[in-house]
Amino acid sequence: MGANKTLRGHKLLMVMPWEQPAQFIENLKAEFPGLQVVTYRQQEWDQTWAPFSDEEWKDVTVLLTFTVLPTPEQAPKLEYVQLMSAGANHVLGLPIFKDTETSFCTANGVHGPQISEWIIGTYLAFQHRFPQYHERQKEGRWDRSDLNLIDDAVQKTIGILGYGSIGRQTARLATAMGMNVHAYTLHTRTTPASKKDTSWTPPGLGDPDGIYPSKWFWGSSTADLHTFLASGLDLLVIATPLTPSTEYLLSATEFELLAANGRKGKTFVSNISRGPVVSTSDLIHALKEGLIRGAALDVTDPEPLPDGHELWDTENVIITPHVSGASTRYNERVLAILEYNLTRLSQDKEPVNKVNKKEGY
Amino acid sequence: MGANKTLRGHKLLMVMPWEQPAQFIENLKAEFPGLQVVTYRQQEWDQTWAPFSDEEWKDVTVLLTFTVLPTPEQAPKLEYVQLMSAGANHVLGLPIFKDTETSFCTANGVHGPQISEWIIGTYLAFQHRFPQYHERQKEGRWDRSDLNLIDDAVQKTIGILGYGSIGRQTARLATAMGMNVHAYTLHTRTTPASKKDTSWTPPGLGDPDGIYPSKWFWGSSTADLHTFLASGLDLLVIATPLTPSTEYLLSATEFELLAANGRKGKTFVSNISRGPVVSTSDLIHALKEGLIRGAALDVTDPEPLPDGHELWDTENVIITPHVSGASTRYNERVLAILEYNLTRLSQDKEPVNKVNKKEGY
Repeated sequence: MGANKTLRGHKLLMVMPWEQPAQFIENLKAEFPGLQVVTYRQQEWDQTWAPFSDEEWKDVTVLLTFTVLPTPEQAPKLEYVQLMSAGANHVLGLPIFKDTETSFCTANGVHGPQISEWIIGTYLAFQHRFPQYHERQKEGRWDRSDLNLIDDAVQKTIGILGYGSIGRQTARLATAMGMNVHAYTLHTRTTPASKKDTSWTPPGLGDPDGIYPSKWFWGSSTADLHTFLASGLDLLVIATPLTPSTEYLLSATEFELLAANGRKGKTFVSNISRGPVVSTSDLIHALKEGLIRGAALDVTDPEPLPDGHELWDTENVIITPHVSGASTRYNERVLAILEYNLTRLSQDKEPVNKVNKKEGY
Repeated sequence: MGANKTLRGHKLLMVMPWEQPAQFIENLKAEFPGLQVVTYRQQEWDQTWAPFSDEEWKDVTVLLTFTVLPTPEQAPKLEYVQLMSAGANHVLGLPIFKDTETSFCTANGVHGPQISEWIIGTYLAFQHRFPQYHERQKEGRWDRSDLNLIDDAVQKTIGILGYGSIGRQTARLATAMGMNVHAYTLHTRTTPASKKDTSWTPPGLGDPDGIYPSKWFWGSSTADLHTFLASGLDLLVIATPLTPSTEYLLSATEFELLAANGRKGKTFVSNISRGPVVSTSDLIHALKEGLIRGAALDVTDPEPLPDGHELWDTENVIITPHVSGASTRYNERVLAILEYNLTRLSQDKEPVNKVNKKEGY
């Protein structure tokens, strides 16, 4: 196809649940004078249909969308779909995905900043006893009696189970705090190239080259995981996707392992992936027995956590209702990926965050 | 005097309110085989006297201490005193400080990690609504209704009033979070040399070369301060010492300035310096009128904040009882400064953190 600096002949359809981003579109038109831009504001987040005629679909070459998608017949010129979600599960079965050469790209990378802030924020809150001071503030009580219990993070070790865009930005923050980073990935990362982040990263953030981990563990066996868990972790961050092989990855044996070798009550566990990666009953046991120092959970199993569930009242746990991914900047970052990939399209380069059609992620 | 690699002929007296750090002393003796080390455990933090005979004092060349100090006659060979406090106010009037050439060094730099964690931790807690989720957790209530109020820190601006060791480590964390840093200092910092941190910094932390600020403001006039406060700050960190010229530095005019130019309710104010740098009544007014977004206060005026004081119940404020400087690693960092300065002594170099005898800091 060759380069097409102005994106002449291209038509971008933006289907969004938000107001039209006027400034963004103006910038886009200045950057790519040949690009036609059409917008549509959807009414529901999970809308799969939109009132476009075949005439409107037929010249669309680029589509920004959550769930509204055409058939291959409706949009024969469609080259690139920018999804607004980090996952692509909902498109895998569709003909436009399966039966065409259209590139599908995820919003992978948009969650790194806010979720890493949640991870570090809850850890600092726990370590610096903010919930306790919050209670004293409500009582109007100036009480410094636990001053000697406050620990800082310098030279502590953070273990990151799943070193993707969230884990990498968390590693950047942890390194700035003076922590030592251990990373765990499914696949081997022995070469500099294999350590690179292949997904989009907000400029200046994350760990694009994989430089932060002082130790990098990998593997798919229980023994591999256990080697990582036994590496002296003060903060364990669970940032792995939920798959059949990660279900209940952290259960009784793993909590006991964290507490072995004189490390009882040392590890703080933070889960921002999915509830079922951790056995809730084994977690409660580990907290009650003091096997771990505490936990921060943005996800639970069951979820939503029902009123009256034992976990709500377990000591040394911070629970938030699956909000760590929320950010008023989400939209802006998705548009940054779109713009970046349009630039790559204009240079006849592969887009970033492209879903592998064989592996489905 | 020349270099003295083994510190032969030197006698170090360590007066501490802690147990003897056996491993540290062993390492010190391995590093400096000529050094004699004597330890004494004081009973009270503010003890100024210790039961040493003149015979014991007379060969002391290096002293680690909070407040126990000899007369010039008792310790005629004293070359270097390592104070365990960040301030030196309590020694300025003593003959051993005033009338001798003895170097007095502060523990400046030991507070950077824990206080920067407190600053960033309270800011993240506020931005990510942790106090609200804490209340819902106690009620056993899974409530995501305020999901769209959560803001992350990317591209927000932090202004640091007083760019010393605490401000510099805070800038390191803020930069890792994607924030833009504005610094304010009393003195002009136009050259690379003037931007350097002259005090001790934990290895790999802080901002030794002053590279993080995108804008650096300075001056002693109200107009200078106001230029800084009007620079579009999302987070204002007060990290300046309390002096006659910083008393009530932040009063009604300054809160109004933060809210000017369409920035009403945008700035979050964090005070870790001393309570009287901020006018409490004007702060309460600014919070109630929504001039600022919120505040985190580790110090108050009056302090301790009495039961029943209006500030306790003011909305959008986080109060902790002057604990941000607490860390179980305090001691360890003071010893690191001592070791570093002993190394410099063995090389016949000036120690770091040396108090200027004319200026008194």
